Amino acid sequence: MQLGLIGLGKMGGNMRERIRRAGHTVIGYDRNPDVSDASSLAEMVAGLQAPRIVWVMVPAGAATQSVVDELGGLLEAGDTVVDGGNSRWTDDEKHARELGAKGIGFVDAGVSGGVWGLENGYALMVGGEKEHVDRLQPIFEALKPEGPYGYVHAGKVGAGHFSKMVHNGIEYAMMQAYAEGWELLEKVDSVTDVREVFRSWQDGTVIRSWLLDLAVNALDEDEHLEKLRGYAEDSGEGRWTVEAAIDNAVPLPAITASLFARFASRQEDSPQMKMIAALRNQFGGHAVESAK
Amino acid sequence: MQLGLIGLGKMGGNMRERIRRAGHTVIGYDRNPDVSDASSLAEMVAGLQAPRIVWVMVPAGAATQSVVDELGGLLEAGDTVVDGGNSRWTDDEKHARELGAKGIGFVDAGVSGGVWGLENGYALMVGGEKEHVDRLQPIFEALKPEGPYGYVHAGKVGAGHFSKMVHNGIEYAMMQAYAEGWELLEKVDSVTDVREVFRSWQDGTVIRSWLLDLAVNALDEDEHLEKLRGYAEDSGEGRWTVEAAIDNAVPLPAITASLFARFASRQEDSPQMKMIAALRNQFGGHAVESAK
Amino acid sequence: MQLGLIGLGKMGGNMRERIRRAGHTVIGYDRNPDVSDASSLAEMVAGLQAPRIVWVMVPAGAATQSVVDELGGLLEAGDTVVDGGNSRWTDDEKHARELGAKGIGFVDAGVSGGVWGLENGYALMVGGEKEHVDRLQPIFEALKPEGPYGYVHAGKVGAGHFSKMVHNGIEYAMMQAYAEGWELLEKVDSVTDVREVFRSWQDGTVIRSWLLDLAVNALDEDEHLEKLRGYAEDSGEGRWTVEAAIDNAVPLPAITASLFARFASRQEDSPQMKMIAALRNQFGGHAVESAK
Amino acid sequence: MQLGLIGLGKMGGNMRERIRRAGHTVIGYDRNPDVSDASSLAEMVAGLQAPRIVWVMVPAGAATQSVVDELGGLLEAGDTVVDGGNSRWTDDEKHARELGAKGIGFVDAGVSGGVWGLENGYALMVGGEKEHVDRLQPIFEALKPEGPYGYVHAGKVGAGHFSKMVHNGIEYAMMQAYAEGWELLEKVDSVTDVREVFRSWQDGTVIRSWLLDLAVNALDEDEHLEKLRGYAEDSGEGRWTVEAAIDNAVPLPAITASLFARFASRQEDSPQMKMIAALRNQFGGHAVESAK
Repeated sequence: MQLGLIGLGKMGGNMRERIRRAGHTVIGYDRNPDVSDASSLAEMVAGLQAPRIVWVMVPAGAATQSVVDELGGLLEAGDTVVDGGNSRWTDDEKHARELGAKGIGFVDAGVSGGVWGLENGYALMVGGEKEHVDRLQPIFEALKPEGPYGYVHAGKVGAGHFSKMVHNGIEYAMMQAYAEGWELLEKVDSVTDVREVFRSWQDGTVIRSWLLDLAVNALDEDEHLEKLRGYAEDSGEGRWTVEAAIDNAVPLPAITASLFARFASRQEDSPQMKMIAALRNQFGGHAVESAK
Repeated sequence: MQLGLIGLGKMGGNMRERIRRAGHTVIGYDRNPDVSDASSLAEMVAGLQAPRIVWVMVPAGAATQSVVDELGGLLEAGDTVVDGGNSRWTDDEKHARELGAKGIGFVDAGVSGGVWGLENGYALMVGGEKEHVDRLQPIFEALKPEGPYGYVHAGKVGAGHFSKMVHNGIEYAMMQAYAEGWELLEKVDSVTDVREVFRSWQDGTVIRSWLLDLAVNALDEDEHLEKLRGYAEDSGEGRWTVEAAIDNAVPLPAITASLFARFASRQEDSPQMKMIAALRNQFGGHAVESAK
Repeated sequence: MQLGLIGLGKMGGNMRERIRRAGHTVIGYDRNPDVSDASSLAEMVAGLQAPRIVWVMVPAGAATQSVVDELGGLLEAGDTVVDGGNSRWTDDEKHARELGAKGIGFVDAGVSGGVWGLENGYALMVGGEKEHVDRLQPIFEALKPEGPYGYVHAGKVGAGHFSKMVHNGIEYAMMQAYAEGWELLEKVDSVTDVREVFRSWQDGTVIRSWLLDLAVNALDEDEHLEKLRGYAEDSGEGRWTVEAAIDNAVPLPAITASLFARFASRQEDSPQMKMIAALRNQFGGHAVESAK
Repeated sequence: MQLGLIGLGKMGGNMRERIRRAGHTVIGYDRNPDVSDASSLAEMVAGLQAPRIVWVMVPAGAATQSVVDELGGLLEAGDTVVDGGNSRWTDDEKHARELGAKGIGFVDAGVSGGVWGLENGYALMVGGEKEHVDRLQPIFEALKPEGPYGYVHAGKVGAGHFSKMVHNGIEYAMMQAYAEGWELLEKVDSVTDVREVFRSWQDGTVIRSWLLDLAVNALDEDEHLEKLRGYAEDSGEGRWTVEAAIDNAVPLPAITASLFARFASRQEDSPQMKMIAALRNQFGGHAVESAK
């Protein structure tokens, strides 16, 4: 099968490799000529036989919109575009409508796998109409892990990115769960080997998981994580999960707490805690600490 | 009326003054001879006519226990002890039992007022048996603010400190509420005068309060709180409130969030966020920041 | 001064009355002819002398947009529109741009006061350009409470609604603070008169506030709130506050917890807790309860 | 090897079976004669050769204390007691001291495994002095899962139960994470097959785990969990985790949110939300719902 693949960064590059290993033909395009198989989007499209399949793997937002716009001009009725980037699910319906007006199909695919995907496969959560999704099955088969899991046609257009977004929200809270437990164990004197406690949990416990395995890897590299700063970025998906919850009046206390913990981790000093300190000083004469 | 008052620090000293202004006789005792009216607890007790009233205003825990023990040996049946410190309500029943075995009455009093109490009066939340509480009315009248509010006999022994503890829990969440709102207003460009927004809220709004007045005072002294570090201690009452909630299976999400925000404010770096950073690096190859 | 006022519901009707009491002329328009002073928006506009001021007090979203659109056709350069409804601050810039293209000024005003506003005045948080805001001063003076507070020109277009939105976010967390404390006090046996504890807090405490006064009123009507269901709606402002926090990476744990508590209060049964029950049953054989 | 095992309920009974399968001799004692191997604790002890090992597997608190007291009278210097129940770590030091005064060793063991333990093995987190722990290795080997994980000597007396307690705290937040994500997915229309989304996550994703596998099992039995009520008990460990965090000033927002969600799930109606409803009615005239 033939596939155009736009965006050959850390994720896209490895995905090209995995699809090729499965015996398919990939014409990759990237603005960086060192990794690109074509000198332009147009050249990439010209190299594909109709009906074409083009997989978009570029940053969410303006970059994806720009590629979708350009593809709308280059592709023709019967072709299919897959957005495998981290787009917000609300963008998917817009893209499907814009391309659909020209007879071009649209599928959204949430992709999980990170740096392990090339070897282990990428989990795929896909949204779109059945006819478009079906056309892509050989590619999905190539990307997904071996075995019965790792792929789902989750629903209509947008359902793929929505499912991936919720996956990431869950991920935030799971990471926070282990992190909170680790900090508490590290704090008490009686537990003398926290790393070995984490290691032991990898079998027979309720909380065994792949993330736990990764935590053990991390502790093996740096037992007390002394080399790291407690600083964590957040991607759009965590924020969008909370926004979707608000739109749907669903309480998400653990996921939201996890997102807020990341926000706080990036503040040099906390403005809100300055106000707390100021108020304590006002009513109780409590000592305050000066800013550095 | 005559009163023995043990502990003449910031709170106790002002309370002695306010009680004296109301025409009562106070024999104060403090380990610091510069402020003490008696050279020992025994001398203070000897100076009081039976039935005696002794108000204890020393740090909660060991210091209060030690004073209660000593008073148990110095006082006699018919006397009454008031613990006006920040004792945990669970200590009150123990103290009431120990003193009650000797015929000595016990009353617990939660006292609010801080540096403003001398002039405005101290709010009092009192627990104990009616006969003991009634004896103390003249002193409570002297301490409480003028007007109809500021004093309550909340219930049995322990109810005074329990009510004061919950007061402080509410206080934590109210402070956090203003602090969160202030940070958000400071963050956006369109709101050009956050201090004036806070000032305007002092009338006609749902959120007008004494704490809001204090916030305006603080902003008048330092408009963006630039001189302060975002660092906040917590007293026992906030912690005990959450523990009492856990004992009673009552969810306290806002109060607990406020307590945790203070814990986090005191950490140079967050261990749990180191773990989050480590995990992100493990599965996604996300960049981490080195510890300083 | 002359004012057109669109929307004469609970809020708008009382505001018309308060402005009239201050000696101004108000031509009110409402779709309900029983309360309207004009038979149409056009008639209302026709009754005003240029340069006109029109205050919009209709539901946020589609209704406000529709009125703004219509006013764009009826008014002329030099007129000024005030949106005093609960619009999202992001709508304000759009409305200002649309009207500004025709030379019509735009001011956004967050209005607080509820059922108490007619007598006590309405707190006003205003956003917009100085020249437009200045024109409206007599009306703002009429609406605001007496005394030095209750009015602020908070900043650029949008700043009024943004400030009012944050006010409401703070309000959510303050209400939650009292509510959590009340539930905990009601739960323990030693505190025998929770209502009197709340009443006593109205003076001398750190947590005295107007909301506390209202809580006492409510408890005087129904001491244990037995007549009420624990069910709370939320308005847009609470949600928008959290969304604005997410946009600005500001952690708002207490405000968000308060919003989520309202979401949960409206669920007959909690889907997420069904999943918790299911998981406990899977790994521990813990008993589950059947749905009714 | 010989072992006395006290408490043959769901956990203890299966553990006896697993230890026996490994070739050891177990004399079990339970108050229920139908499952007991001995007619009394004394008879059980009399059947063991010195130095004896006795594993206690009874409910935490009073029941465990009573057994420890009784064993203190029956055992002799050189014997070892293991508390494998869900005791609070603070009890362990007390038990170790009481038994140690008689020369009897004490080891605390947190045991995870639930209904799956008999076949898959029990994860063990152990605290105590090395000499006592070493004596028990053959029993630990019999109980733990095959493979390199599932057992740790975590530290001093109490470290076993502390580690197990933190394990359960993490478990609470992980369960909450999946539960929140599930509710959000179920709420939106575009995702038409939530169960298959969960199933797909079992491979290639960041959030794959044993708990996820169990969630899929549960959804296979009841796709929308319609047969269950959203009601969840909590065991002591979740509460103790938060209390330990408070003692150590460690913020645990996600774990605590998970605990509070369980508290709320057990309330027929929420008292705190009654107060919110009452306040909204007071200031805004917002409609309230009557209690049923």
